[in-house]
Amino acid sequence: MTTAWVITIGNEILIGKIVNTNATWLCQKLTSMGIQVNRIICVPDEEEDIAEVFKEAIKKKIDIVISTGGLGPTFDDKTSYCIAKALNLEYQLNQEALKMIEEKYKEKNMELTEHRIKMAKMPKDSEPIRNPIGTAPGIMLRYGKTMIFALPGVPSEMKAMFEETVSKVLRKISGQSYAETYLKVIGVPESSIAPLIEEVMEAISGVYIKSHPRGRELGEPLLEIHFSAIVDEKSKAQRIVSEAKELFKKLVVNEFREAKLENG
Amino acid sequence: MTTAWVITIGNEILIGKIVNTNATWLCQKLTSMGIQVNRIICVPDEEEDIAEVFKEAIKKKIDIVISTGGLGPTFDDKTSYCIAKALNLEYQLNQEALKMIEEKYKEKNMELTEHRIKMAKMPKDSEPIRNPIGTAPGIMLRYGKTMIFALPGVPSEMKAMFEETVSKVLRKISGQSYAETYLKVIGVPESSIAPLIEEVMEAISGVYIKSHPRGRELGEPLLEIHFSAIVDEKSKAQRIVSEAKELFKKLVVNEFREAKLENG
Repeated sequence: MTTAWVITIGNEILIGKIVNTNATWLCQKLTSMGIQVNRIICVPDEEEDIAEVFKEAIKKKIDIVISTGGLGPTFDDKTSYCIAKALNLEYQLNQEALKMIEEKYKEKNMELTEHRIKMAKMPKDSEPIRNPIGTAPGIMLRYGKTMIFALPGVPSEMKAMFEETVSKVLRKISGQSYAETYLKVIGVPESSIAPLIEEVMEAISGVYIKSHPRGRELGEPLLEIHFSAIVDEKSKAQRIVSEAKELFKKLVVNEFREAKLENG
Repeated sequence: MTTAWVITIGNEILIGKIVNTNATWLCQKLTSMGIQVNRIICVPDEEEDIAEVFKEAIKKKIDIVISTGGLGPTFDDKTSYCIAKALNLEYQLNQEALKMIEEKYKEKNMELTEHRIKMAKMPKDSEPIRNPIGTAPGIMLRYGKTMIFALPGVPSEMKAMFEETVSKVLRKISGQSYAETYLKVIGVPESSIAPLIEEVMEAISGVYIKSHPRGRELGEPLLEIHFSAIVDEKSKAQRIVSEAKELFKKLVVNEFREAKLENG
């Protein structure tokens, strides 16, 4: 199983000013490639915090680490420096990145100031990721078993860079596929459905089933049941979730005459 | 400074099915009380992951840890058990919690099954938090320097329990106040504004200034500048952010004739 961490850098998330939709978007993309995200971690714009979380991901031998935020011209854009610090790598001017930045500002007849050049400083051996929308290049870096991708926090830039560069690299890494399906159960409390979920998960290997209460446990119970599987073949993943759903339906209908089932 | 971690438990966040609005809501509330959130961590419904993140918060002597999710009747609702495990406390039936649950199901003429009783099992010395909307009680527990609050993931339940119980406890803990103000700068790239931000932060003690690019660095630059302060008095925090904003305005107008400024 290919594992991933999504790291979100920025005080604006931690003061509740901004909802972390970047992480949700990335998690959808990674999951659909059969990659298992097992952390989203938001850290403030502080050197120690940022470096710590990269260090931890490396220590845990996570396959893929994708960060958003903290790449830019201001004093609190510290991601690149912190990755270098965390991995004990030299923090140096990347010539390819500098060229990317130089071209962008030249087009507008603007000079390279200290704050603009800063966006080209990266950990040694980084490969800059082209930013087709903004100015700050992203960072791609292999460290031992881990592939690190640092992207900007501006959603349009982050998404464009993921689609253009990151996704292509990831497709080569992950050999897994993901499938999911849903079912709505109306009229039965979650606490009554709980043992049936366990029964299906025991019967069908590889499926994960989670119930999401959408109504009220007592009064108007409405559950959304989510079946998912990550295995080595797409068709196999699909078969697993379908079989699990069918078995689950049977058990519910058998046990609860009052239950109403709806697909999707 | 009172510090907090927000922990979100649940695979649905990590597969990108659900945006983590619970964390954003909690961060807003905590920040407005002068509490500094320095992590949001999302973990899967796995014992080891959940226990690990609580252990880490305790090790780092975080003042307040609030988790959402994983309190309920299904097999993958493991938060309570994992807190007990992380802190090496007995995991036992809490009589007060059991009474809360018993009453709820009794009203509907429903029996206490094993999966329902499970919601009353808590780490030793926990205080159950009343759930005015759903059935699963929350958990309040002091461990050394750290106050732990475990709340359900259903937003309406989480919010009601925070307002009714958690917020009252937190108000007693935090002695700090928060203030913020905004300013829009139109027509100047972020890389040109960067040195002025540094100048203001050096001149005015206690202010934190962050620029959020909303337009395009090259072409149509639009920046939202956020000034914030957490100090011991509300009026002092407000004075700091106002002074910083005024000084910043002066510097921008002086340096960039083309700049347009807008409040809010």
